[in-house]
Amino acid sequence: MANIAKKVSWSSRGDDRGERTPLLNGAEDNKQFSGGSMFHVGRMSTVDLEEEITPEEDIVRSRLKEIPHNEKLLSLKYESLDYDNSENQLFLEEERRMSQMGFRCLEIRRWVICGLIGFLTGLIACFIDIVVEKLAGIKYFAVKQSIEKFTEMGGLSISLLLWAVLNSAFVMVGSICVAFIEPIASGSGIPQIKCYLNGVKVPRVVRLKTLVIKVIGVICSVAGGLAVGKEGPMIHSGAVVAAGVSQGRSTSLKKDFKMFEYFRRDTEKRDFVSAGAAAGVSAAFGAPVGGVLFSLEEGASFWNQMLTWRIFFASMISTFTLNFFLSIYHEKPGELSSPGLINFGRFDSDSVEYNLYELPLFIIMGALGGLLGALFNILNYWLTIFRIRYIHRPCLQVMEAMLVAAVTATVSFAMIYFSNDCQPLPSDSTEEYPLQLFCADGEYNSMATAFFNTPERSVRSLLHNPPGSYNPLTLGVFTLVYFLLAVWTYGLTVSAGVFIPSLLIGAAWGRLCGILLSYIASSKSIWADPGKYAFIGAAAQLGGIVRMTLSLTVILVEATGNVTYGFPIMLVLITAKIVGDYFIEGLYDIHIKLQSVPFLHWDAPPTSHWLTAREVMSSPVTCFNRMEKVGTIVDVLSITSTNHNGFPVVAHTTGDDEPGKLCGLILRSQLIVLLKHKVFLERATSRLQRKLQLKDFRDAYPRFPPIQSIHVSQDERECMMDLTEFMNPTPYTVPQETSLPRVFKLFRALGLRHLVVVDEENMVVGLVTRKDLARYHLGKHGLEELHLSQT
Amino acid sequence: MANIAKKVSWSSRGDDRGERTPLLNGAEDNKQFSGGSMFHVGRMSTVDLEEEITPEEDIVRSRLKEIPHNEKLLSLKYESLDYDNSENQLFLEEERRMSQMGFRCLEIRRWVICGLIGFLTGLIACFIDIVVEKLAGIKYFAVKQSIEKFTEMGGLSISLLLWAVLNSAFVMVGSICVAFIEPIASGSGIPQIKCYLNGVKVPRVVRLKTLVIKVIGVICSVAGGLAVGKEGPMIHSGAVVAAGVSQGRSTSLKKDFKMFEYFRRDTEKRDFVSAGAAAGVSAAFGAPVGGVLFSLEEGASFWNQMLTWRIFFASMISTFTLNFFLSIYHEKPGELSSPGLINFGRFDSDSVEYNLYELPLFIIMGALGGLLGALFNILNYWLTIFRIRYIHRPCLQVMEAMLVAAVTATVSFAMIYFSNDCQPLPSDSTEEYPLQLFCADGEYNSMATAFFNTPERSVRSLLHNPPGSYNPLTLGVFTLVYFLLAVWTYGLTVSAGVFIPSLLIGAAWGRLCGILLSYIASSKSIWADPGKYAFIGAAAQLGGIVRMTLSLTVILVEATGNVTYGFPIMLVLITAKIVGDYFIEGLYDIHIKLQSVPFLHWDAPPTSHWLTAREVMSSPVTCFNRMEKVGTIVDVLSITSTNHNGFPVVAHTTGDDEPGKLCGLILRSQLIVLLKHKVFLERATSRLQRKLQLKDFRDAYPRFPPIQSIHVSQDERECMMDLTEFMNPTPYTVPQETSLPRVFKLFRALGLRHLVVVDEENMVVGLVTRKDLARYHLGKHGLEELHLSQT
Repeated sequence: MANIAKKVSWSSRGDDRGERTPLLNGAEDNKQFSGGSMFHVGRMSTVDLEEEITPEEDIVRSRLKEIPHNEKLLSLKYESLDYDNSENQLFLEEERRMSQMGFRCLEIRRWVICGLIGFLTGLIACFIDIVVEKLAGIKYFAVKQSIEKFTEMGGLSISLLLWAVLNSAFVMVGSICVAFIEPIASGSGIPQIKCYLNGVKVPRVVRLKTLVIKVIGVICSVAGGLAVGKEGPMIHSGAVVAAGVSQGRSTSLKKDFKMFEYFRRDTEKRDFVSAGAAAGVSAAFGAPVGGVLFSLEEGASFWNQMLTWRIFFASMISTFTLNFFLSIYHEKPGELSSPGLINFGRFDSDSVEYNLYELPLFIIMGALGGLLGALFNILNYWLTIFRIRYIHRPCLQVMEAMLVAAVTATVSFAMIYFSNDCQPLPSDSTEEYPLQLFCADGEYNSMATAFFNTPERSVRSLLHNPPGSYNPLTLGVFTLVYFLLAVWTYGLTVSAGVFIPSLLIGAAWGRLCGILLSYIASSKSIWADPGKYAFIGAAAQLGGIVRMTLSLTVILVEATGNVTYGFPIMLVLITAKIVGDYFIEGLYDIHIKLQSVPFLHWDAPPTSHWLTAREVMSSPVTCFNRMEKVGTIVDVLSITSTNHNGFPVVAHTTGDDEPGKLCGLILRSQLIVLLKHKVFLERATSRLQRKLQLKDFRDAYPRFPPIQSIHVSQDERECMMDLTEFMNPTPYTVPQETSLPRVFKLFRALGLRHLVVVDEENMVVGLVTRKDLARYHLGKHGLEELHLSQT
Repeated sequence: MANIAKKVSWSSRGDDRGERTPLLNGAEDNKQFSGGSMFHVGRMSTVDLEEEITPEEDIVRSRLKEIPHNEKLLSLKYESLDYDNSENQLFLEEERRMSQMGFRCLEIRRWVICGLIGFLTGLIACFIDIVVEKLAGIKYFAVKQSIEKFTEMGGLSISLLLWAVLNSAFVMVGSICVAFIEPIASGSGIPQIKCYLNGVKVPRVVRLKTLVIKVIGVICSVAGGLAVGKEGPMIHSGAVVAAGVSQGRSTSLKKDFKMFEYFRRDTEKRDFVSAGAAAGVSAAFGAPVGGVLFSLEEGASFWNQMLTWRIFFASMISTFTLNFFLSIYHEKPGELSSPGLINFGRFDSDSVEYNLYELPLFIIMGALGGLLGALFNILNYWLTIFRIRYIHRPCLQVMEAMLVAAVTATVSFAMIYFSNDCQPLPSDSTEEYPLQLFCADGEYNSMATAFFNTPERSVRSLLHNPPGSYNPLTLGVFTLVYFLLAVWTYGLTVSAGVFIPSLLIGAAWGRLCGILLSYIASSKSIWADPGKYAFIGAAAQLGGIVRMTLSLTVILVEATGNVTYGFPIMLVLITAKIVGDYFIEGLYDIHIKLQSVPFLHWDAPPTSHWLTAREVMSSPVTCFNRMEKVGTIVDVLSITSTNHNGFPVVAHTTGDDEPGKLCGLILRSQLIVLLKHKVFLERATSRLQRKLQLKDFRDAYPRFPPIQSIHVSQDERECMMDLTEFMNPTPYTVPQETSLPRVFKLFRALGLRHLVVVDEENMVVGLVTRKDLARYHLGKHGLEELHLSQT
């Protein structure tokens, strides 16, 4: 029968408690104020809800979940990944049977999988790139034809209408897919992948269906002319590919290739997903090293050299695949010149050098980027709150997306129409769609190069067009308009990234700075190249919005193919981060917080040394005995209010009501498999009917059936189950007096899901899970505690 | 009084023991065969010997230690760093007193220190570079004068003599410094820093004296014309700078600046040292990202974002400082064009591209590099064994170094003399010392560009000189000769790195490959640039010798300033690593093994799941009581045969002879400080005389006095000490059944020094230290155990 450990008395360390800051006491009062039951549940882990929900429910739930959020809540909806291996007897037996050759084969298989991940991610990137090019080409061709026709005839409003309708149509398709079929595919996917790599099980994030919707969605939204990029979603796509390939089967397609069965557990899967994310970055920016750093910066808690190399391998293969297939597509096979989806182009050797006295200017631009980034994030934060409150029905979401698409087209058209910035058309123009409009023959409208183009091309024009291609007014207006459009667009129910719009905004005002500087400076030759300032501005703006530093530096350096800018970029990004962080967090972090995800940061808050495991842990804990009655297990697993996921297994020394000595830890998923296979000791005498193997657990992974689907007869309820063989006999434990930073470090470094708290007699007194640690954060007034919410 | 826990019976898990492989039993027999006493000592931790030795003894010891080594031994001489923070009451009180502002100040101070580290490392690099340039300039000028004079007169043997004498003189100075003053400064220092970052306390490695000798040594050996580079030692220099700056004092100079006292503990110091190493790489190669990756690849077990950014900051400052001061030195202030000591120069845009069909060629070159690297390592391994056995007296070492210097000069001279590879002198020649010798007027001897030059310049000529500058025979002979010279040179008692010679060898045969290919290929234009092949060859050779992959890729990419080669370099390095690893380990790992350092790799051997903590741990363990008699403590600390470093503190429940319940862990260094300050409960009644603070511990760090220097009177021996306040109350523990990989993961991820093994009653049964884990490695016949040696 289940044994509920007694609630530990809190008074035993009165001295510590007495010294608590009043503020935290306030926070605690708050928590109690917010409802006793909530508090109670908050201190327990809940069931993984992923397993028992149909797609329809899914959508309803994912919409529901978004209503009551604010960043002071912590959702109980999210479970942790089991990054800690359950080293039970089955596992040890399997390992023992395996020869050294077997381990080597496993290692080779890991490399093969990483190669596959890179290859498929590269292919997907290539597919997206080509389809977007084609669709956008058709669209711009049609609109250009129409504009040219109507410029002379009059009646350009028909062209505008055509443009707006085309845009809206594309966006509608993408938005419908995302909103009605797979809402998790919306946005760039980077926050979700960050969470996954952090160890949070985000429902449905790495499913095949998500990938398909993501790809369709991103094609539609880029072709639809929104202020978005196709780079962010590549990271998500890579992660899904990795999760799929490494498991050797698709649960969505109900197809099992009977391959890679060994890797069907969270530990291995997360490693592969980090390789996939890196491959995605690599394909998006042609930045394999940046990809590795991105994965490590976001995900790795424990740096493992072999893993790092595999990630690197996947990244390299990914960019190579993309490069290779694109070179074939561009009919120059073998000429590997497009390593990523975005290609900043090569800077001339002359413009590459920077001078010492430019560094202060770069720093100022970095600060400006930080300010503008913070403004972007604040506006987008408000907008997101508004969306969470009022726009949570799919049809509304689709309509908003279409509206944005139409407005984008209209605004762009207006900008082009009213600008009279005519530039001579160079003979060797790289513009694909130069719009003459009202300009003289042999000239083109320079505002059109910024708006009448895919954002990637616009960025490249801003970086590389010769000085004088743009006039300052054009750039200023463009910055303002595009900034607002981008703020409005991010968070729409479409698949789209924020990298390219950020770069574009930054490149525009950066180029503006360059031009203004050249007016001010006496000797014009020094400031000759506004492209350099456009690049610095792009880096500053992107850094101000997303705030990654190390990986972003490397990504930008690799994307330009030039190391010389490394130092200025780093200065700019650091400045942007410091300035931006003063006002508000990075965009991804904001969205993670708004989802109330229990995200673990790198360290515990510095002022939390006086908090101990005793105060942090969930207690009382539901424990099982080594030999437990089936009925008890079924009953405990069926309680929906206290849906636990991990159960300490205890041995009793004296009485049954005493807390027991810890002898293991068993997971809900393991118990479910045991129940499904009816591994009962019949009337506690004969032996097991069939020897279970790890394979049985792997086959059920990752969608373990819910307890309700398992039928246990009244007779069977009286049987006993021997958990000894299946539990993890050596779970990590900490004493009650351990300080929070120490608990945190152990939990984070080893990627734990459950950490058992024991007293000096090795009796179970509590359980620390992710939520117990993620609750504490450093607010403006010192340590604060987040509230726990059921949704 | 001390309580010795009973030896745990091994028979309790007979089932496990029965299934052991016969091979390991063999290994165990071996171990017992090698002497019972050795085995006994091997299972205990020994005293840190660093503290109590004079410089003279130092040298004798460091020579002694090198005699009986082979790679099957594990030395007990090396201690671990305390990367785990001792969270005792003093620490908690200090943290509690600190405001949030205080923590922010600490963080700012960390950034300031990292900036200083970068700045000073850059300065040192700059100093080395300039002095080497000057000295080498003088030398080559003198020799060139002499050669030009005697070419016509006859009697070139006088020039040869001059050259050989100059070389030997330089090398003698460097070698004497290293051999007689600070032997740890010999070599590149990379193996030592790898060990330090791995958590091994290598004696004297981060002292100021080491730095001074290192700088003098490297200047002398490079100016002395040896086949060495000045890049490897920069990493060591950076590490020393970091260790010094972060502590705010120098124990060598007996100067305490009373700054940064908070950082006087191993945890913080190691973090700064990793920043220093990164700054060193960054200054050496102009590769800040590569530096960060190097530090992480070698050192970090736990990736921390803030730490990574600080490391990156130090790297950036370092390369910037070097660049800035060198630009002033070259009289082009503000023109930042030399970011590193080695500068591969810029590749032309045309030669930068590679083609798809070249990739197989690159892979073949990678394999060749792996083979040649393995050959290099095997030859150097034999040579090192020979040196350990026969050349361990300083004067012999100095003589060997001088001999190598003279031979290098002679061989170089002979090569130049007998080669008749005359090339026309280009008008815009970058050669500083073109030797005409027997060539016609307006021509120069091309062999001389390779030999009569600092190795860095030679590398650059090989990469960038136009096709046709070298004839194949010259390159072939040069490769062979330089290969042998480099093998002989690495491991000499001089400060010198192996990066540049490796690159030079590789560039030579790579260029040779390029030339040969251009003969074979029908269309000559494709293979026009042998410089590209020289670069690939350099990468392959370096990868084959040192075997770092990720960081090396980035370093090479950053050093060329060109991202395009990223993919080929990665292919080449991976191939070189796979091929090389088939034969022998990387050069640094060989030297680490030959020093018998207990180096922890990334994971436990894969086949070790059936080994448990019970079998791995050291037992019995010397424990103390919470209240312990001073006499007992002094006695235990004074036992030289079982010099323990960490002592579990236990509380007794029943009898005194029973093993006690774990309630803390105290370190030798803490006890020493307590004894020194005489923190005794006088006759167990009155309170402490003076309240000790963390400051007292920090002041004594890192050279705690030996126990022998502390006088305790007979009266005082009878006093009691209360350890409660000073011990770490929550040491990490594992149960006895924990498998080795699990213990390993915990130990490695948290950077532990002592891991207490407890039974299910929370009684202390054993202690796991670094040696217990480093002992196991995967040999040819499965799991093998290393022997433990006292020296």
